[in-house]
Amino acid sequence: MSVDTICALATAPGGALGIIRISGPQALEILSRVFSKNISDAQPNTIHYGHITDKPSAIGHQTSDIIDEVLVSVFRAPHSYTGEDSAEISCHGSRYILNKVLELLIQQGCRMANPGEYTMRAYLNGKMDLSQAEAVADLIAASNEANHQMAMSQLRGGISTKLSQLRDQLLKLTSLLELELDFSDHEDLEFADRSELLSLAKNINNHITHLAESFETGQAIKQGIPVAIVGKTNVGKSTLLNALLKDDRAIVSDIHGTTRDTIEDTIDINGITFRFIDTAGIRQTSDQVEQIGIERTYAAIDKARIVIWMVDAEPAQEELINMNKLSENKKLILVRNKIDKAQNTPFTIVKIPLIEISAKHGTHLSNLEQAIYEAADIPTPQQSDIIVTNARHYDALIRAHAHLQRVLDGMAQNISGDLLSEDLRLTLDTLSEITGGQITPNEVLGNIFKNFCVGK
Amino acid sequence: MSVDTICALATAPGGALGIIRISGPQALEILSRVFSKNISDAQPNTIHYGHITDKPSAIGHQTSDIIDEVLVSVFRAPHSYTGEDSAEISCHGSRYILNKVLELLIQQGCRMANPGEYTMRAYLNGKMDLSQAEAVADLIAASNEANHQMAMSQLRGGISTKLSQLRDQLLKLTSLLELELDFSDHEDLEFADRSELLSLAKNINNHITHLAESFETGQAIKQGIPVAIVGKTNVGKSTLLNALLKDDRAIVSDIHGTTRDTIEDTIDINGITFRFIDTAGIRQTSDQVEQIGIERTYAAIDKARIVIWMVDAEPAQEELINMNKLSENKKLILVRNKIDKAQNTPFTIVKIPLIEISAKHGTHLSNLEQAIYEAADIPTPQQSDIIVTNARHYDALIRAHAHLQRVLDGMAQNISGDLLSEDLRLTLDTLSEITGGQITPNEVLGNIFKNFCVGK
Repeated sequence: MSVDTICALATAPGGALGIIRISGPQALEILSRVFSKNISDAQPNTIHYGHITDKPSAIGHQTSDIIDEVLVSVFRAPHSYTGEDSAEISCHGSRYILNKVLELLIQQGCRMANPGEYTMRAYLNGKMDLSQAEAVADLIAASNEANHQMAMSQLRGGISTKLSQLRDQLLKLTSLLELELDFSDHEDLEFADRSELLSLAKNINNHITHLAESFETGQAIKQGIPVAIVGKTNVGKSTLLNALLKDDRAIVSDIHGTTRDTIEDTIDINGITFRFIDTAGIRQTSDQVEQIGIERTYAAIDKARIVIWMVDAEPAQEELINMNKLSENKKLILVRNKIDKAQNTPFTIVKIPLIEISAKHGTHLSNLEQAIYEAADIPTPQQSDIIVTNARHYDALIRAHAHLQRVLDGMAQNISGDLLSEDLRLTLDTLSEITGGQITPNEVLGNIFKNFCVGK
Repeated sequence: MSVDTICALATAPGGALGIIRISGPQALEILSRVFSKNISDAQPNTIHYGHITDKPSAIGHQTSDIIDEVLVSVFRAPHSYTGEDSAEISCHGSRYILNKVLELLIQQGCRMANPGEYTMRAYLNGKMDLSQAEAVADLIAASNEANHQMAMSQLRGGISTKLSQLRDQLLKLTSLLELELDFSDHEDLEFADRSELLSLAKNINNHITHLAESFETGQAIKQGIPVAIVGKTNVGKSTLLNALLKDDRAIVSDIHGTTRDTIEDTIDINGITFRFIDTAGIRQTSDQVEQIGIERTYAAIDKARIVIWMVDAEPAQEELINMNKLSENKKLILVRNKIDKAQNTPFTIVKIPLIEISAKHGTHLSNLEQAIYEAADIPTPQQSDIIVTNARHYDALIRAHAHLQRVLDGMAQNISGDLLSEDLRLTLDTLSEITGGQITPNEVLGNIFKNFCVGK
């Protein structure tokens, strides 16, 4: 199969520099035709200064033919990102220059890369597995520490290693079941009994289930953990939100001089994003219009994973009753606001953390942030604790679990091993989809890489 | 003087890749502290694959400590952009990663670079002169071929070479005047007579004037050449503008998949930008409100360098009379629209190019574009024809011209050479300001580089 040589802008336009990537069997030959030096035989991992010129192959260029003074980095197969011969052209970041250089490369036989095509080639050339390739897009998109660490763990082969262990155990199970079959006529031979095999299968299934269950956490981290601040009107909900947001914005704008494109009502605590859901105040009312607003508030609360219940320094008894309605399935944090005005009458609610603050004066806000972070109950991503973040992986895990469950059911009913082998094979194949160990259909690859940016 | 080591993001955030630049005496040492390899003694112009880690100097990093897998390009003084030891870190383009890497570098002793500080260092280290340094910013900002070529010509030393020639001639003039002085007692010695010296001085002054005059053209190219489309109401002005713009937009979005940030009413013809000024229709009216609108139209016309006067296929006589009012100081193009509906009655106006089109059907629009381009009368920038684009250069040229004019006046009045030497020296010094040959005050440098982007 003949492979195209592809090119694309790998950086966002608008900076001091712009990088154009070129990869494929003809990369260095094509680039040499528009570059002032012949780099066809250049050593790998070397940098070459020269000009990109508008008149390919001409000798004695005019200044007006020079598109840019550039640095070309040369990489050689298989020791490159894609595994192919490739080069990166570091240009001045003018859109005119970048477009012109791409145009020249295309004239000389390159074609524009599709989104994610460099990474797809890296996968197809065995430089990384499919879950690692997907991690590249996640890594680029990660905007906080938790997302970054999940993506980096996946890129470094976290999920791949885990799946490889599960596959080894499944293969062991398969061979033991085959052994059981082969030697079923020789009752004098010893081999693992069914209960032992069943225990092995259950253990594998537990791991698969555990991975699948981590997807909910993975999604929460990826999208931000929903938090609702509720409480009666004028208890200080907006003041608290502003106080929390302001703190965060100050951190965001830190030394880097960057601003967020869209400032949402989110804050990062210890690298985790929390997303605040707006709610109206709740109070006992007979007003029908207000009742609708309150129902909406309950609906908003329903979406939250964490509910901050705000009360005044001296809360009325019915506020605390109201709160008990919500405690199911939600992590509840009781916040006693306006402690600067409190009569020093402490109170506690059993089993619910109480944080005393003054939203207005910013008192003890860090205690509240710590309580929010703990309520999220997010394990720090470590190599030992894989969190599934990808819907495709989750889908495969759920299907693998279903196949393995059939194996377990069959084993429990003492069905003979050869009748279970098809479901075992399906379990293995389905798990392999995640890392792309099996041949992955083009359609699936297309879906995976279409959401990448061009140039990656 | 101890020099800081500086770091900055050199690409726009948001792409597949982001490049962080680090430059200064400690560049490679500092980077080695956060990089998985020691590159302190790396060969120049080599590329190194490794990790940036959050725990400097630690051995056996956890996955969670890895900020990114990166490529580091190493450059060594004096063969680098800045002339200092420097490195470029090619990271995944996530804002989290880029901020984190900058943060680590700063923790290890770098400071954030000021706008244009890399280029300022390149100038201070003799890698380029001041006009070339300024050309870097122009090159990055250039959005069309003409601007690009002007900037590239300046970067390649176009104006520097020209000024160097003028300085040589001024030095020759100075020495000849000194010779005249030294040997004034020896009437038997032959030397160039005053008329010859005067002719040399005039020639130099002509060159300076010519350069200064090119600034108007340079500005027009830089900002886009203003064009007004005028004519009576319903003659098809908007249709024409849309037809011209649509054509242009199609070219802009071409293969590159880029869109302009703000779509103005500008079109590029042969690499020159033309900026369209909106005008209301002009007709004879006694309505006072409409009269004001028409006065505004004349004011708009006043700003234009090119006026496209649109008439119907069968124009009324007064339309042609109106037009003659405008012909002074403006390049006028007469456009006869709706030729598809014309009764085939040709007409010509002396000395004004006539273009017949159908804006609606897009007929002969390329003829009109060609006429607009020719009316702009812009010389293609070549090394032989320097166009001044920089207001600082223009200002210096004007002052140099004034100094030299005093020399010329003095020579015409037969004032002795030694009395002219001060003005000659001022002429030389003023021209030197452009390339920064004299020591440039920090304040001037600050003004020049403050408009650069950070990272360049």
